[in-house]
Amino acid sequence: MIPISSPHNPRIKQIRALRHRKERDRTGCFFVEGLHAVAEALHLQAPVETLVVAPDLINSSYGYELVEKACQSSAPCLTVTKEVFASLVPRDATQGIAAVVQQRWGKLTYLNPPPAHCWVALESVQYPGNLGTILRTSDAAGGTGLMLIGNTTDPYDPASVRASVGTIFAQQLIRTNIAAFTNWIQHHDVCVIGTSPAATLDYRAIPYPKPLVVLMGSERAGLSPAMQDLCYAIVHIPMVGRSDSLNLAVATSLLLYEVFRQQ
Amino acid sequence: MIPISSPHNPRIKQIRALRHRKERDRTGCFFVEGLHAVAEALHLQAPVETLVVAPDLINSSYGYELVEKACQSSAPCLTVTKEVFASLVPRDATQGIAAVVQQRWGKLTYLNPPPAHCWVALESVQYPGNLGTILRTSDAAGGTGLMLIGNTTDPYDPASVRASVGTIFAQQLIRTNIAAFTNWIQHHDVCVIGTSPAATLDYRAIPYPKPLVVLMGSERAGLSPAMQDLCYAIVHIPMVGRSDSLNLAVATSLLLYEVFRQQ
Repeated sequence: MIPISSPHNPRIKQIRALRHRKERDRTGCFFVEGLHAVAEALHLQAPVETLVVAPDLINSSYGYELVEKACQSSAPCLTVTKEVFASLVPRDATQGIAAVVQQRWGKLTYLNPPPAHCWVALESVQYPGNLGTILRTSDAAGGTGLMLIGNTTDPYDPASVRASVGTIFAQQLIRTNIAAFTNWIQHHDVCVIGTSPAATLDYRAIPYPKPLVVLMGSERAGLSPAMQDLCYAIVHIPMVGRSDSLNLAVATSLLLYEVFRQQ
Repeated sequence: MIPISSPHNPRIKQIRALRHRKERDRTGCFFVEGLHAVAEALHLQAPVETLVVAPDLINSSYGYELVEKACQSSAPCLTVTKEVFASLVPRDATQGIAAVVQQRWGKLTYLNPPPAHCWVALESVQYPGNLGTILRTSDAAGGTGLMLIGNTTDPYDPASVRASVGTIFAQQLIRTNIAAFTNWIQHHDVCVIGTSPAATLDYRAIPYPKPLVVLMGSERAGLSPAMQDLCYAIVHIPMVGRSDSLNLAVATSLLLYEVFRQQ
């Protein structure tokens, strides 16, 4: 098969447009690149729409095997030159395999959380890198997934997908708003723990019964009063020095590892 | 004073060039922007070379007070239009105050660590965002500073400075190489704890005596064998799920908070 060599090819232009949220929202798809991430997509049976392979960039036996496995899946496979591949992957176009995958969103309405589950709910999170890093830690610490409340950044943003290191296919994602989240909390037996620098309770001083929602505020504003009212307890992470806050992904990770430790 | 209105003004061009490592290395200076970061620089008596103020963007009493305080310092103050300010701060040019500050580097040779000190040593760290986030957590958890070993990214990169949220002025920084670090460890009574996903020891299962160096490998390759040989113990952070590693700033933060907890 002759590889696509024009970065202006209509299909390539469509795929490239997925770096914009508008196009991701319109199509319900996102773009993921790299050997590990595509392997995770296939292994976890993510709904892959199209595979993109630049044969010139595949140079390991692991890479060849993955391409072979990928091409046996039902998704169509576009073969492209390394220049076209680089036009799709601005940052580090060295691995030669990528995919367009359908987004998967759960519905809060239908969620009846099993007893052992732990969710992270993020209110108005802004930075996709933080979101992807939280997906990665949640996966590592046995979390179920993320609830995104209000006006948040997109977990399918390229920076989030990259920071998630493939765990975007393993974690569940739910998008909701304050009213629906409040209503859901009121009708389910779920423990909600929030964080605030103003809280007096140390995050290591309380038990975290499950099912659990760890509720984190935005990078700039923290948790809104409406969200704080939903919490069974609000904890803080002790700090000395000059900082008055931690990076959101770091703070969430410390909470998740405390929950994990208590198991 | 008439504000500088040309983004081609030679002094403005010099300042803008500080976004490149080559220019930072050549001049020994870096650029920092935002009310909080400049306030920290002044409060901690960082060697400020030049202040940059866009009066049109200052709109809070805190901002006015800071500018007044800043202009009373010995550093010259450049007044610029908001357009020129935006040309210096590509991402979020809303706060109207910035500074050029001299870098501060400590020397490992002269370091005789006091008993209570905890350092993070990073081997070949690649991403400035991670580096800045580690500075922020180290400050919050009572750490002393960072030792950067080998070919690492620059803590004075704009992304690192931004992620440090002002703590770059509070934390100590040392740049060294494997040979010098090895020699220093051999001649000082310091406990070195490393991390590796292959280790069997849980990071919460050991004591962290001080003075302490927490040694972390690079994002891609982890700790090199030469560095592992220097460690008193090598620990791992338990993980379930699909990940085989955590984000470097998250992993370092979990270690630092375990050290902090044990105090």
